[in-house]
Formats: sequence, structure tokens, C-alpha cells
Amino acid sequence: MIFKPAFFGSSPDLPDIPPFPASVPGNIQLDFITAHPAFAGDLNVGLEHRKMLALEPYTWFYTTTLDCAPEPGEKLWFVTEGIDYLWSLELDGETFYTHEGMFSRVELCLTDLLGDRLHPGASFAVKIHPHPMLYTAAEGRPRHRSQAAGCVKPPVAYEWDWHPRVIPSGIWDETYFETRTDAHIFDAEARYVLADDLSRADVTFSVKAAVPAEVVFRDPDGEVVFEGRSTPDMPTLRLTVADPVLWQCRGMGDPALYTYEVATSGDRKTGTVGFRRIRLVMNEGAWWEPAGFPKSRSNPPAQIELNGTKVFAKGSNYVNQEIFTGTLTREEYEGSIRAAAECNMNIFRCWGGSGVQMEDFYDLCDRWGIMLWVEFPLACNCYPDSGHYLRILEQEAAAIIRKIRRHPSLVLWCGGNELFNSWSGMTEQSLALRLLNKLTYELSPEIPFNMTSPLSGMKHGGYTFIDRESGLDPYALFGQSHATAYTEFGVPGIPSADCIRGIIPAEELFPPKPGPDSAWEAHHAFNAWGSDAWLCFPTLARFGDVSTLDAMCETSAWLQRTGYKAIFEAARRQKPYCSMAINWCWCEPWKCAVNNSLIAYPDFKKDAYYAVADSLRDVLGAAEIPKFSWSAGETMTLVPWLFNDTKKEVRGRVTIHVTFGGGFVVLGAADLEAKPLCNAKGGALSFRIPDDAAHRQRFTVTAVLETDGGEKIFNSYELVIENKEV
Amino acid sequence: MIFKPAFFGSSPDLPDIPPFPASVPGNIQLDFITAHPAFAGDLNVGLEHRKMLALEPYTWFYTTTLDCAPEPGEKLWFVTEGIDYLWSLELDGETFYTHEGMFSRVELCLTDLLGDRLHPGASFAVKIHPHPMLYTAAEGRPRHRSQAAGCVKPPVAYEWDWHPRVIPSGIWDETYFETRTDAHIFDAEARYVLADDLSRADVTFSVKAAVPAEVVFRDPDGEVVFEGRSTPDMPTLRLTVADPVLWQCRGMGDPALYTYEVATSGDRKTGTVGFRRIRLVMNEGAWWEPAGFPKSRSNPPAQIELNGTKVFAKGSNYVNQEIFTGTLTREEYEGSIRAAAECNMNIFRCWGGSGVQMEDFYDLCDRWGIMLWVEFPLACNCYPDSGHYLRILEQEAAAIIRKIRRHPSLVLWCGGNELFNSWSGMTEQSLALRLLNKLTYELSPEIPFNMTSPLSGMKHGGYTFIDRESGLDPYALFGQSHATAYTEFGVPGIPSADCIRGIIPAEELFPPKPGPDSAWEAHHAFNAWGSDAWLCFPTLARFGDVSTLDAMCETSAWLQRTGYKAIFEAARRQKPYCSMAINWCWCEPWKCAVNNSLIAYPDFKKDAYYAVADSLRDVLGAAEIPKFSWSAGETMTLVPWLFNDTKKEVRGRVTIHVTFGGGFVVLGAADLEAKPLCNAKGGALSFRIPDDAAHRQRFTVTAVLETDGGEKIFNSYELVIENKEV
Repeated sequence: MIFKPAFFGSSPDLPDIPPFPASVPGNIQLDFITAHPAFAGDLNVGLEHRKMLALEPYTWFYTTTLDCAPEPGEKLWFVTEGIDYLWSLELDGETFYTHEGMFSRVELCLTDLLGDRLHPGASFAVKIHPHPMLYTAAEGRPRHRSQAAGCVKPPVAYEWDWHPRVIPSGIWDETYFETRTDAHIFDAEARYVLADDLSRADVTFSVKAAVPAEVVFRDPDGEVVFEGRSTPDMPTLRLTVADPVLWQCRGMGDPALYTYEVATSGDRKTGTVGFRRIRLVMNEGAWWEPAGFPKSRSNPPAQIELNGTKVFAKGSNYVNQEIFTGTLTREEYEGSIRAAAECNMNIFRCWGGSGVQMEDFYDLCDRWGIMLWVEFPLACNCYPDSGHYLRILEQEAAAIIRKIRRHPSLVLWCGGNELFNSWSGMTEQSLALRLLNKLTYELSPEIPFNMTSPLSGMKHGGYTFIDRESGLDPYALFGQSHATAYTEFGVPGIPSADCIRGIIPAEELFPPKPGPDSAWEAHHAFNAWGSDAWLCFPTLARFGDVSTLDAMCETSAWLQRTGYKAIFEAARRQKPYCSMAINWCWCEPWKCAVNNSLIAYPDFKKDAYYAVADSLRDVLGAAEIPKFSWSAGETMTLVPWLFNDTKKEVRGRVTIHVTFGGGFVVLGAADLEAKPLCNAKGGALSFRIPDDAAHRQRFTVTAVLETDGGEKIFNSYELVIENKEV
Repeated sequence: MIFKPAFFGSSPDLPDIPPFPASVPGNIQLDFITAHPAFAGDLNVGLEHRKMLALEPYTWFYTTTLDCAPEPGEKLWFVTEGIDYLWSLELDGETFYTHEGMFSRVELCLTDLLGDRLHPGASFAVKIHPHPMLYTAAEGRPRHRSQAAGCVKPPVAYEWDWHPRVIPSGIWDETYFETRTDAHIFDAEARYVLADDLSRADVTFSVKAAVPAEVVFRDPDGEVVFEGRSTPDMPTLRLTVADPVLWQCRGMGDPALYTYEVATSGDRKTGTVGFRRIRLVMNEGAWWEPAGFPKSRSNPPAQIELNGTKVFAKGSNYVNQEIFTGTLTREEYEGSIRAAAECNMNIFRCWGGSGVQMEDFYDLCDRWGIMLWVEFPLACNCYPDSGHYLRILEQEAAAIIRKIRRHPSLVLWCGGNELFNSWSGMTEQSLALRLLNKLTYELSPEIPFNMTSPLSGMKHGGYTFIDRESGLDPYALFGQSHATAYTEFGVPGIPSADCIRGIIPAEELFPPKPGPDSAWEAHHAFNAWGSDAWLCFPTLARFGDVSTLDAMCETSAWLQRTGYKAIFEAARRQKPYCSMAINWCWCEPWKCAVNNSLIAYPDFKKDAYYAVADSLRDVLGAAEIPKFSWSAGETMTLVPWLFNDTKKEVRGRVTIHVTFGGGFVVLGAADLEAKPLCNAKGGALSFRIPDDAAHRQRFTVTAVLETDGGEKIFNSYELVIENKEV
């Protein structure tokens, strides 16, 4: 039986503060400020979050009274799915267990471990030590993400260009006491091998229990396909599923899940299994690069093959959607995952800087058909070859692998983010990455592993509407780019003027200004990534109205939505050489004034979300547009496309028209036939911008697809006139 | 005591042939033709080697009589360092052991294994099964290296563009019987960790023996630095060597070796230990690539850092120097390794296609200071993810690692050759390479590991004097190239007219002609790599005299020696961004009519060997020359350089002169100062080719370095005039 007693929080560093209610799972600093709103209010508002800095060096306690007395034949266990980060357990003030690492599931038999010391009314405490830091501010170095480089804790909380410096601590995932008999089921896991032609799954079902267990396996319709019995001597059952219904990602079919039930005389566990085969195969044409001598290697593969079908990965970088992950509910996870499916995505890259989520996240991705590229918690730092770090990484990575490998949504392991670029400084020789290769090979060999993103051929960036170096807009920059996979790219946008009014104090509201105590800057409008980003005021002022807060917000939203359309569709045009379009980023953990996310905290869909949903429709007519900004009298050449990410052939007519001022011009149409999973392209059409086009006038290009089935699909692009001053 | 009884060879596929003497170690097919010269003569001559094809499917036996009777307290063991490839052991006609894999050391206690069946006079046989092939000619597919892709046998013998189709079999490495008492020492190995500042080595010395053993450790001067005693319960001794004398590669210092002696009451083993720290670090400037968004990763590191010093790797690709590796002697190995040191090299890339050598090779590289990049036996094939292959690879690779990791000359593990190019088709996802990364991480983490060569930034090729695609000569092609490491590049050359006369039948001698039964073609002059290579007759005819065999051979040698100079020196000029110049290839296993090797079989130093030795001198004056071919009246611009690969600063004057026809012109000089391990470059000098320069006239550029120390070092380049026909 599971016990979840009330815990109270306290800190020896806050000696005058009486114990306060602590949420389990949750976050101890949040519990503290919830109990003491005078210390800090809503962290999303103004500079409130800075008050959390003072708490960084604190030690915390979760304390409860153990009054569950095991019956005869029972033992008392302590179980946690994750405590952040360096923690000890104390009974009546004496430490009996210490652990480093927030991703390990830990199960301890308190009865065996503590014996007579365990008594009704004992005081049980989880002590959270201060987070180990590679260096501290006391050493005279500024706070920085690299403080996290010595430990296996997601570095994002140490401050990122879209994340405030707020470092969570405490019991972040399910944690409870349990009385267990010998009939307890410790674990049950199905591993399988699919036949080459996918016609059969050979399943190895392992039960970890000290008594026999009845196992029932059901297909996605609930029909029993297998019944068996495991025993402690024969804990592994082998079953064959003929013609298994395969798990498919969104767009490729149903995310079919088999279910199992394991029951002993005194325990019962259920779970799901999705059968699918994942390969990372060479991108079309990539073997023929590079040409000529002296010759390097071909790029590594970036093409996902799911159940034998090459899938174009359309998606987003999932980052932590709360600063305090442990406070997330299944409903909040589902809202986010469902929104991705409704945005016509099929993949999340779970970015390493944010760490690993609670079980519900993976289960829901299984059910919504969202594939997951899962990174280990390394990002933008040089993680050391030291023995201590490698030992903790081995323990934590193994725990992460064992937790997530059961999920059919898992399609790729990755060591972490941008580790092979100068700002990180890791290489293939870094022992941490060699260790992660080893562990995934041993524990999850059926899933591909990349050491980092980007690898050669894959690309990250740009992150602003106008590229800083080349001065190109997204249409122009990505029109000339060549990549196997775009795994990060972004355009910043303000969510809404209302959002800004909720987080920026009235006196600073407009015009936005940078500065050490500017709420705009604290919320990432300035000096987040260079001095301009993310607001990029000069770009907004160049193309649109920035005379009021509302006008500026509209301009920002316009550039974000049109920029994202440009990039996602450019990547789709580059299929099949290009196999992935995954933008930076999906969500955000607090209210950014401006950010590249499609979803603003907590669940507000920006304009760009809807624009991306449009651009990612599996069947779509599109216009290839060479650039964003045009001038009076210039001739624009457009190419109609038919995108097809479905397994069916699609035929239809793509008509391109331009809405300019009050006018509406049909440029022409192309009758196109797109083979399954292939695009088709028509002949170029042209449009002469009127001579009287006004500076900063917006105009619209629309591609209308009328399919043979009679469906009509609209796809519009908002462009701009810039006349050179004379 | 060790017994090496006489073995006799036989084959059930040759029922009429009586047993013949078999060399152990050696090769069974060679033993057969040695005993039956009527079957095949010298394999180097004409088409004799083709007679070996018939033997491919044969089964072979090595048979001997066991008449060594162990004394009381002794047991009889069978020990082999390597038997090629699938083999069984039989006693009196009954199989008692089967093994796949030629690189595993196998030790079997026959007394324990066979018990009463072992008797004086018993017949003991090693049965060599036919090599497993992925497919056979009987299936209608042509013979090809890919037949070797299902097994861990070097693929080179299945035919390469410089290796005949002759597939060795049998006992290729030390193999014997031994009577052992309990006092036998099974193994002794020193592993160590060097302090960050290299001031201390913490050594863990492990002895595998059933009785106590006395251990003595001596420094390179023979002074005892440690004495200790291991016991079965405490088999590991820990010792600290303060201020260890470090092992250095040629050019960086002495290849210092400590020695150890382990003795029990009845056994004694000795060995060596070299202390050195190896890292593969980022090439200078490589972190700043690529520039601009969207951005990929930086290239992987290719810079060897030995004991904290960045070493420019100068060397060659070592391939098997005999078809039948097992016949090589220590003296033959030493001749080759010494020649590399005398060629001013410091590294061999032990190319994966050729497999692993006998112990002497590694020991001699330790002693001559030749660093080793060691590849596993994978090359130019797509090795499968199959369970059987991965099991054998794991066993064999672990054996290779345990054998070679003891050698300080080892500086890099590599999965194999050109696996990430289209002709192989492997990727980072190939389980074989993930397994090799895992095994080297577990067993030899102090040594870097690359999955293959080339990686991004590293380059292979070209392989002909005139690049087929660009039409550029080596000066022009490598003058414009940019690479972190050139790990293969080659220029073909005929060894000598005498060599040709020894291998090509008189009636085909000249002019050379291709054809299915042409000895020239069989010896790789035609259709080895495209129809032209390796003779490249049109190139020879373009630049030189090809009117007689002797003239053609001289022209070929000229182009090879001048081409190699161009490339090695171009790579040196690109230091420090470029960190390696390793040509294709060093030696060859039989008499090629023409090949890119510097050493012709068995030990003939081609002209190119001497030219490379000149170009690789650690301190050298050089001329940067933009191209090979010039025309009358053209102005040539040359840049003087001072190369310095030593740890000392070098100062000197580099004078450039041109010897043209009977004339001699001093173009100018530069006083240069080259910091330790750095080059220096002077100002450009120019020379106008005389108007009356004749078509195909050769001329010479010479760089003369006069060092401050008074040394005078000459370095000459042979160029050519090509006047356009009018």
C-alpha cells in the first residue's frame, strides 16, 4: 500500500521561518515563496525572480512523521522517481543514505536498512544539499551555465537566453512510502525484436518479482493475444506477436499500443508496448557528397525511417514548459503535446539543456504519435573527463535510458546540445559522450544515437528574422541553404501586448529599454543573445509600425509568423535531401517578453503557431518565394509547389494569386501530381510589383490547392514593400 | 617448458597429396606450394598467383604427434597467438574445440580438457575450415572484397587495387604446446595514470599467477625503481614513478622504455612500459569553423598531443608487407620500421584492411619512436549489424585491444578505413562501430578513438599525379586544399625497370598493355583503379620520355618523387591548422608493377622514399611552388619557407635558386626565425622562365637553408616546361 504523508519544508539557512507545507512532487523554493509571498510574488512579473538568487546556497529539508507501521509479512519502502539534486535521507536526525543525481529512480527497503531504528512516529527527512557548482560567485566569476558542467543537472536553470536564473531543488517527481509483501512486482518490461519484414514481433517479457505472476497481453483492440505465468526461476516469458499492429507517428497511421497486465497474489501492474522499427538512414543524395579529391567523409545520416517508411520530421524543440517541472500536471503536458499534433508536427527534439520529463510526458507522446528525440542533460558546456562526473553520468544516464526506452515514441538518443561547437568545446573524444554511446548501445541498441546536434550536414540557426552576418531574411537565407536536417531555427516574436502588460511594470512599458534593472531585459528583450535580441527593435522598425506597444507587438508577431513559414516551407522543399525541420523552440518555462517559442507561457498559442500549423499540413499547396522585401516596379518570380507528406499519391491544381492593395491578381496555376511522400513543383510564375507600391506596404501571396478529391487548401504569405529612399 | 613439434600439412581436398612440412607460424597454402612447386612458382611472377584461386574452398589440416608427457604437477597446454580464421582442434580425429577469429590469443589446458584421452603418441590436428564468405562465386557474383564483410578477417586479401586475390589461411602467429606448473605466469600488465603535469605516474601492475611473484621494475637506464611481490590474493601492485622519463616519438626525444621482470618459483616474464599521455585535440583555428548561420558543427579534432606537445604527424599508411604475414621475421619488421624513422617519419597509420601484426611489430615501433594509429580490420565494406558478426567482432576486437594497448607507440584507435563513404556505406549508427567505441572506452580509455578515416575535415586522395576531376597537379591541388589532416594521398611510381623485368614475362615487357591475361594488369598497372591507374600512361607520356621501358620507369619515378614532395610540403605549410600528412602507402605485400608505395616489395626504397625523407626533415628550407608545369616566358612566383618540427627555435637564411638548362639563378633569400614547432615564411620571389625554354625540358628549384648553427640543408624540386603547341 502506498503512503503519501504530508511533508513540511524548512531550511537551516532560514532559521526563523517555521516549517511550511511542501508539495510532493513539486519544488522546495516554490513551496517556500508560496508560504511566504512577502519574500517573492509571481516570478513571472517584473524582477521578482531575482529574489530567488538569495536561495541558491541554501540547504533544505522535507520532513514528515513516519506513522505507517508495516503489517506482519510487510516491509516499508521509500520510493522516489527523482529528487533534485544532491540529497540525503535522515531518520530521527541521522543520515542513512546519500545520493547524487536527480534522474535515478531509487527504491530503498527501510525495514531492512534501518531495522529497529524504524518506529511509529519517527521523523523522516529528505535533506537537499546545495547544488554542486563548478565554481561559485564567491570565487569572483560571474554566474553562468558552465557552473553546471560538473554535474548531471540540466544547465538551463543556471540562466539561458530565455530562462531566468532560478535553480530548482527538491522532490520533483513521484515520491512515496510503500508497504510491500513478497508479492510486490518490482518491474515488468517488454523488449522485442521485429522481423525484417515487420511481420512478426518476438517479445521478451521480463517480470521482476519474488512470486509467480500472471501476465496478460492485449492488442490495441483489447483482445487477449497472450497469457502466461512468470516465476522467480523463469522470470522471462517469450511470446510472438504475428502481424503486429505497428505504432505509427502522427500522419503515418495510428499510434497503436498493446497493453499488458501483470498480477501476483498481492500486486498488479499495467503498461503499454508499441511495436515499431526505427532507423537513422542516409539522406537521399548524401552518399554522393563530397565530390572530388582530396575527399572527406559523407555526412552522417539524419533521415528517420519508421517501420520502413522515410518520414520527414516536422516539429519543434521541446524545452521545459515550467521552471519547476515537478509542478506540471498530466493535463498540462497533454495540452502541449496535443497542440503539437494539431500543429501538424510529428516530432519533439527534447533539448538536453532542459533535462528529462516526468513519465506522463512520454506516455502522452506515445498516445499522440509524437516521436521523441531525447537528449541527455548536457548542453553548451564542456563536461569533463573526470572520474566523479563520469560515475554520476553513468548512473543517471542508465536510469534515463531504462525509463524512456519502453516508449515507442522514442526514436533517437542524443548526447546533448551543440557540444561540438566552440562555445561548448567537446569532441568525439570526450569521455562523457563515449560513455553515452556505450550505455545506449548496451541498454537500447535498437535506437539510433547521435553524440550531439548539429552534426555535419545538420544545421542550427539563424535565430533572428534578419540574419546578422549576411543581412538576409528567412526566405533568402534558407532558399540558398543546403542541409540534411534543420534541427534548430527560430524567429522571435512578442506573444501579445496583453502578455507584456502582465509582466512589465507600467512605468517601463513603452518604449522598451535595456538596462541592468529593465524588466524588458530581464524578460529577454535585450542582451539575451547579443544586445538586440530577442526584441530586435531595429528590424521591427525597419519593416513595420513600432509607434505604440500594440503596433510593435503586431509587427513582431507578423515577422515571426512569416519568418517561420518561410523556413519550414524551405526545408520541406529541400526534401528528400533534407529530412527534418525542427524549430527553436516550442514552449517556454516563464513569461518571456519576446522569444522564439511558438507557445508562450503557459499555453498561449502565438500567431506563429497557427502559421506553422498551416505550413506543416501534410498535403499543401505552396509558393516558393525568393525573398521577403520587394520594391515598386520589381518583378517577383514565384514557383508553385505541391507538398505531400502522406503515403498516398496526391493530385491537384495549385493556383498562385497576389493580393496587393485593393487588387487581386491570379498569376497562374500548375496541375501537379505528387507521388507518396514526395513533393511536386510547377513552372515559375511572375508578378510585377506595381510602380506605385508604397514603402512598408504589406501584400499577400496565396497558394490555393484544389485536390482531385475536391478539397481546397489555402496558404498565404505576408510580404512587404521597401522602396529605396531617393 | 615450451614444445614446438613439427607439423605437417594436408588437405582432404587434395587427397593424392601426401602430408607436407608446415611452418608454424606461417601459412598453409604457402607451405603447400613450397612443397609442390609444380603447382605454383614464385607468386610475384607473371600470373602465378592466380593458381591460388583454386585453393580458396579447401579445408586444411596441421597435424603433429603429441609426445610430450607432462611431469607430475605439470599440465599440458596449447597456446596460440592467432590462427586464421575458422579453426578446430582434433585429438585422434575427434574435434574438441572450435574457434572463429584469427586475432584471439587462445590458451587451452589440454590436460584438463581432454583428461585420459591425452596419451603419448596421440595425433593432434589443427583443422582450418574454408573461410566464411558473405557469398561465393558459385552464387554468380564476382569475387570481391565484400565477400569478407561478414567476418573479422582483413579484407585486403580478397583483392585490392594493389593486392592480388590470395587469401591466407592457417597458423599465422606464435603457436606451441607448453607444460606448466602452478608457478606459471599467465599475464603481467602495467596500466598507469599520469599526473596532469606529467610529474608522476601511478602504476597498477597486475600479475595473473596462482603463486606469489617477485616483481622488479627498472628505469630506462636499468636502475631498479621498484621491487614488490604479488600474491594470488593481492595480484595487483601499486607503485608511483616520480618524474618518469617519458616515451617520446622520433623527433620529440627518446622513446624511453621502463622494463619489468616478474618471476615465480618456476616462471619468468619480462616486458616494457612507456609512459606517455596522448590526446587528440582540436586543430588550431578549427573551432572557428563553420562561420555563419545556419551552422553545422566544428570539425572533429585531428591534432595529436603527445606529453603536452602538439606533434605534426608525418608518416605513411602501413599495410601488410607480406601476403603471408605469418612468415615475417623480426628483422624484416625492423627494416621497415627503421626505414620509416630514417625517412623522418613519426607515425604509421596501420590501415584496417590489412589487419593486425605480430607482437614484434608493436615492440619495434615502441623502440623506434614510431607512433601507431591502429585500425580494426574493417575497410571499404558495409559490416552488418548481425548478432553473429557483432559477437565475433567483440571477441576479436577485445583481443586486439588487450594485445596492443600495452605499447606506448599506440596513439589512436580507429574503426577502419573509409567506412563513412559511399563505397562502404556505414555510418555512426552502424553497430560494429558503436561496439568498437564501447570496447576501446572500456579497455583503453586513455587512447582516442575515431570511427573511421576520413572524418570531416580530414581528407583522403588524390591518388594520381594529375587529379582526374580537376586536372590539377599535386602542387596546384594541395596548394588550394584545406584540411585538418591528410591521412591518405598518393602518387604512383614504378619501382625500377629491373623489378619489372623480374615480374613481367619478356614477351609482354614493353610497351605495357592491359588485358584479362596481362601480367602488367595483374600487377596493377591497368584497371586497378579505373582503367588508367596505376601506370597512368597518358600522364607519363605527357610529361616525359616513354619510348623505352627504362625511360618510362624513370619518368614514372620522377613524377612520383616530385608529386610526393609537393604534397608533403603543402601539408607542412598548412600547419598548425593541418596536423597530419600520412601518405598512401608505405610498403606493399608483393611485387606491384606500379603502386603508390614508397617501399617496393620486399624492401626496395623507391626514389620517392628519398624525396619524402628530404621533405620531412624536421628542420628544412622549402619553396612554395604554385604548380608543376610551366611555359616559356611565364613568370613563376616562389615563396621561401623555414619548416621547424623541433622543440627548439630555429633561425637561418633560406636561399632559393633555379637551375635551368645550363644556367643557375639565385632568386633571393629570406632570413627567417621559426619558433619551436612553428614554421616561418618569407616574401615572394620570382623567376621568368626563359623564352627559349623547350617543351618537356625539366628544371630544378632548390631551397638552401643555412642555419645560424652553420648547417646547410638542400631541398630540390624538379619541374617541367610544357609549351602550348602553336
